[in-house]
Amino acid sequence: MEQTNHTPTHFVEELAELKQALLAMGGKAEERVSLAIQGLVQRDAEMILDAKTGDEALNRAQLEIDDRAFKLLALHQPMAVDLRFIVGSVKINADLERVGDLAVNIAEAAERYIRHPSVKSLIDLPRMAELAQRMLRDALDSFVRQDLALAQLVLGRDDELDALKNQVFRELLGHMLADPRTIEPGLDLILVSRHLERIGDHATNIAEDVIFIFAARDVRHQGQDQSVPT
Amino acid sequence: MEQTNHTPTHFVEELAELKQALLAMGGKAEERVSLAIQGLVQRDAEMILDAKTGDEALNRAQLEIDDRAFKLLALHQPMAVDLRFIVGSVKINADLERVGDLAVNIAEAAERYIRHPSVKSLIDLPRMAELAQRMLRDALDSFVRQDLALAQLVLGRDDELDALKNQVFRELLGHMLADPRTIEPGLDLILVSRHLERIGDHATNIAEDVIFIFAARDVRHQGQDQSVPT
Repeated sequence: MEQTNHTPTHFVEELAELKQALLAMGGKAEERVSLAIQGLVQRDAEMILDAKTGDEALNRAQLEIDDRAFKLLALHQPMAVDLRFIVGSVKINADLERVGDLAVNIAEAAERYIRHPSVKSLIDLPRMAELAQRMLRDALDSFVRQDLALAQLVLGRDDELDALKNQVFRELLGHMLADPRTIEPGLDLILVSRHLERIGDHATNIAEDVIFIFAARDVRHQGQDQSVPT
Repeated sequence: MEQTNHTPTHFVEELAELKQALLAMGGKAEERVSLAIQGLVQRDAEMILDAKTGDEALNRAQLEIDDRAFKLLALHQPMAVDLRFIVGSVKINADLERVGDLAVNIAEAAERYIRHPSVKSLIDLPRMAELAQRMLRDALDSFVRQDLALAQLVLGRDDELDALKNQVFRELLGHMLADPRTIEPGLDLILVSRHLERIGDHATNIAEDVIFIFAARDVRHQGQDQSVPT
């Protein structure tokens, strides 16, 4: 089957550019999360406002990446791993955009939270944020480097994030039961922990896509309704 | 450019089958949500357990739909609207699968909730569930019928769901402040309302994809960083 009038070299270069654009978008999404969590921990209203409103660059990046991916599909009609890579990029792109939305949600909760006195010193939430961001970064790295072992590592870390989330919940519940004044701000911290959990979920989605793209096998729902050789 | 050895008729039939598979998957996802909410409202532990564990069919359907979509892309190398339709299917498929996950999350919250006495009669949460399910159904219908007006309608309904969520929150906060025994079960109802909100978000994602697929314009982030002609 003949390729289009684009040379294969162009195709390879354009794939590399798509990869770079996704990495850059991942970096931006991570920054948004950092800013929102820092604003929360430092009770910095200006930083929080910035985290809440400044995601235009991320939105533009998403449109640009989709555009790149669809052009590659239409012009080069790629097969096999290239095809899965490009369609996977469109999915990963959507995950990254939602990480940006979650950063906005965290900033909204932070905005309400700092209107109240502190419920507790925030140690576990920044730890959750760090873990979720590391998962996101590693998931994207595994994508760029086609590193299946790293993608598997990301999948394993979801339990750690879940355990931290449960710890945050139990501790805040204790505060809320002991002092009703902590109920409203405590609720917002619980919501932040859920948003961070969801960022971990998106990293997990990306890692699953990476394994699907490069190993051509589907790890989603393994152990639930099908066995997958390791 | 020559097509593959498949005739266009085959392609049209296979596209129709992909559409039907997505509709069926949407129906299954909706059922999971119904079951979880019904279990919560009726405090029916068996129904809740069923909602928590019985989503293998949905997971199988997801794998099958991705498989269909990638085969169509590889064999027929579709262009323009067909290309966007098939890649869109892969994205919509992921959204539907996550709706199934959210039904599991609702069932998990319901399982904890029914261990406590009722906090309040559940009226707004079933209303939220109905609205979210209708959004999901209409988004999928708009996809199958290529109905851009219906997709726009879905986008508009997100505010209604948001208002209900805020109402649920305020009411539950009132209960929790008045009676600490309602804090723990109240938290689970707030989480259920957030899960339902996210189902609405997935319906919104699907509606945006529909408009992108059939109108070839991107409504995502409109009014934020670009103007889009109507």
